[in-house]
Amino acid sequence: MPTEIERKFLVKNDDWRSLGKGVFYCQGYLVSSPNKTVRVRIAGKQAYLTIKGATTGIARAEYEYAIPVDQAQELLQTLCAPPLIEKMRYRVEWGGLVWEIDEFDGENQGLIVAEVELADENQAIALPEWIGTEVSHDPRYYNANLSKHPYSQWAK
Amino acid sequence: MPTEIERKFLVKNDDWRSLGKGVFYCQGYLVSSPNKTVRVRIAGKQAYLTIKGATTGIARAEYEYAIPVDQAQELLQTLCAPPLIEKMRYRVEWGGLVWEIDEFDGENQGLIVAEVELADENQAIALPEWIGTEVSHDPRYYNANLSKHPYSQWAK
Repeated sequence: MPTEIERKFLVKNDDWRSLGKGVFYCQGYLVSSPNKTVRVRIAGKQAYLTIKGATTGIARAEYEYAIPVDQAQELLQTLCAPPLIEKMRYRVEWGGLVWEIDEFDGENQGLIVAEVELADENQAIALPEWIGTEVSHDPRYYNANLSKHPYSQWAK
Repeated sequence: MPTEIERKFLVKNDDWRSLGKGVFYCQGYLVSSPNKTVRVRIAGKQAYLTIKGATTGIARAEYEYAIPVDQAQELLQTLCAPPLIEKMRYRVEWGGLVWEIDEFDGENQGLIVAEVELADENQAIALPEWIGTEVSHDPRYYNANLSKHPYSQWAK
């Protein structure tokens, strides 16, 4: 079973910006429940259909398939519940790991989170100084939930 | 947009059996609502992920992607709502068209339906003498519904 183990953090300053290049992502969900999500994503010039199971700790079954971009566009417009998630994703190599920093736009504008994928749940990692609070276990930050309850609507 | 136009009928005798060879299908649904289905199907040695939109008349948007059989098996066992649909599908050429005859097993045992795919909604077709009542517009016969309300549980 392909599994994804990730930790997710808020970002506390802009010092990461010089370290990576951004790619535009647009994604939506055909299903989004606590036990199962089916995501349609356009990432730059590629598109993917991704199925994820329930999260166990910080691990999650993940199945990803490349699909034609024009079909992804149709699926996003006709079958995914609005609002769609729009974000720039920056890939930053730091301390031997790859960090993915998502700067959201649209209804989630103002939110920036950083994710790192790990080999196992207990892997020790060094945190860059631009990393803030960990939000791995806060479901509000799941992209599927940001689509239902966008950041712009959170009580702050 | 890839579109599927199909008519579906009950089968009234066994005269079709000598005309085609059967392949075993097992399928389940990651989502199944009136407006959207996401189906996982193993058909013989192939597997597919198929997304369908709402039906308009007898036409329906359909997006299909080949996936690895072992992953399809995992998706069916872990993320699709039981019961799974099990059937033998027979492909029969008749009158210049290809008929697909589904003989259901498991919780839908006893049900046999024949489907034909058309080029447009108004295409005239000749019906083989083993074809019975048309059920194109009866939602009980949608495979997604046969998974929720199997034939063995219908009031007869």
